[in-house]
Amino acid sequence: MDTILNHRSIRKYKSDPIPQEILENILDAGIRASNTGNMQVYSILVTKDSLIRQKLWEAHFKQGMVLQAPVHLTFCADFNRFSKWCKYRQADPGYDNFLSFLTGAIDALLAAQNCAIAAEKSGLGMCYLGTVTWMADRIIKILELPKLVVPVAAFTIGYPDDNPGLTDRLPRNGVVHQEKYQDYSPSAIDKIYEVKESLAESLALLKENDKETLAQVFTDNRYTRKDNRSFSRKFLEVLEKQGFMNNGEM
Amino acid sequence: MDTILNHRSIRKYKSDPIPQEILENILDAGIRASNTGNMQVYSILVTKDSLIRQKLWEAHFKQGMVLQAPVHLTFCADFNRFSKWCKYRQADPGYDNFLSFLTGAIDALLAAQNCAIAAEKSGLGMCYLGTVTWMADRIIKILELPKLVVPVAAFTIGYPDDNPGLTDRLPRNGVVHQEKYQDYSPSAIDKIYEVKESLAESLALLKENDKETLAQVFTDNRYTRKDNRSFSRKFLEVLEKQGFMNNGEM
Repeated sequence: MDTILNHRSIRKYKSDPIPQEILENILDAGIRASNTGNMQVYSILVTKDSLIRQKLWEAHFKQGMVLQAPVHLTFCADFNRFSKWCKYRQADPGYDNFLSFLTGAIDALLAAQNCAIAAEKSGLGMCYLGTVTWMADRIIKILELPKLVVPVAAFTIGYPDDNPGLTDRLPRNGVVHQEKYQDYSPSAIDKIYEVKESLAESLALLKENDKETLAQVFTDNRYTRKDNRSFSRKFLEVLEKQGFMNNGEM
Repeated sequence: MDTILNHRSIRKYKSDPIPQEILENILDAGIRASNTGNMQVYSILVTKDSLIRQKLWEAHFKQGMVLQAPVHLTFCADFNRFSKWCKYRQADPGYDNFLSFLTGAIDALLAAQNCAIAAEKSGLGMCYLGTVTWMADRIIKILELPKLVVPVAAFTIGYPDDNPGLTDRLPRNGVVHQEKYQDYSPSAIDKIYEVKESLAESLALLKENDKETLAQVFTDNRYTRKDNRSFSRKFLEVLEKQGFMNNGEM
């Protein structure tokens, strides 16, 4: 529990390698995660090679931690292995569709979070890379992912060279609903975002970005409609190309 | 670590309620999970009411555990709260697209797995319901989810009235790749699935389903092409209806 409650994203790492036994424990934790129908329709890629990590660094918007951290994990929805098994066993796999991608993505993400917690429990630091869905096409090329394999999560791991504070979170009743969904009134939104908006770092962001509200920093600079739409089309093309969009009536 | 490595899906529960403090700790564990840009674009629904749980039971293919377990958690991609905040703060939210759904789904799934581990650490049992993506339209109605909210994970929790053994997993090198993806040869597939195919319960499944291979149980009975395609179209319709498919060029 302490491991979970004390999670910090670590963006600076020592160069010390991760002992093989610890790395294997982390992977085994991922493999124990719940998954759909025990099909295990995900794959985990462990990248240590510095040349490949350099290519991943370029794909991940050149975030420094990708070069620094000794190990880079990529979690993929994977119906390739399962479909090959079916074909070699006189069974006809029908997993080249959107629902199957979603199923694989769910499996991969639950495994990823198990690995993240196991890494932190071992004294390692980690940081998810949100760029993985934006740059899925590049990552597919770098890691040579075949059809029916699509990356949905990635993180760096290594020994921390940084000790950041806990980041803020919305109050519990800001994200939890009792029984059914209770939609948000303007005054409920005020209450939920009150603390976040008054943090010194939020006020600093307004100045830095020359904005009147914190929300504008997100909509105008960080996660813009234009980028979101462009990445949406790119990701849907990736799904098509990787063979996950055969959804027609039979 | 032991909690993670000893995970079992619990499908039978005692009627004992979950103390409020324990439930709140579980939710707080979910809220500490990594999320995209600290936007926290997910919601967690806690359903205890027996009438609502009965409706959820019907939606989730009448799996008995949904009626038995005192608490039902549903995890949703949620850009409704964030978009409302933007609107009330003179910011123009552009999160009605597929990439934003995917971002919210990732946030929701990492939070779900944190909650699952925290529940098990507290001596509770849990079991994910894969039916959540198949029946998203029904669940949206039952839980009154507004636009920009889509369920991606759900599980039951309660005190276990069952003590099942550990389920099998493929060997580590069956799902982990070193450096880049190594595609599977027929003999690699043989090795990876060897133990699974020889389990007594797998052999029992062949008899039960009158099939020649275990793979055929999956392709012909459990996860058929016809069902997968039909659920794919249904889920894509849900995304459209919930307002997550505005991906056009601007």
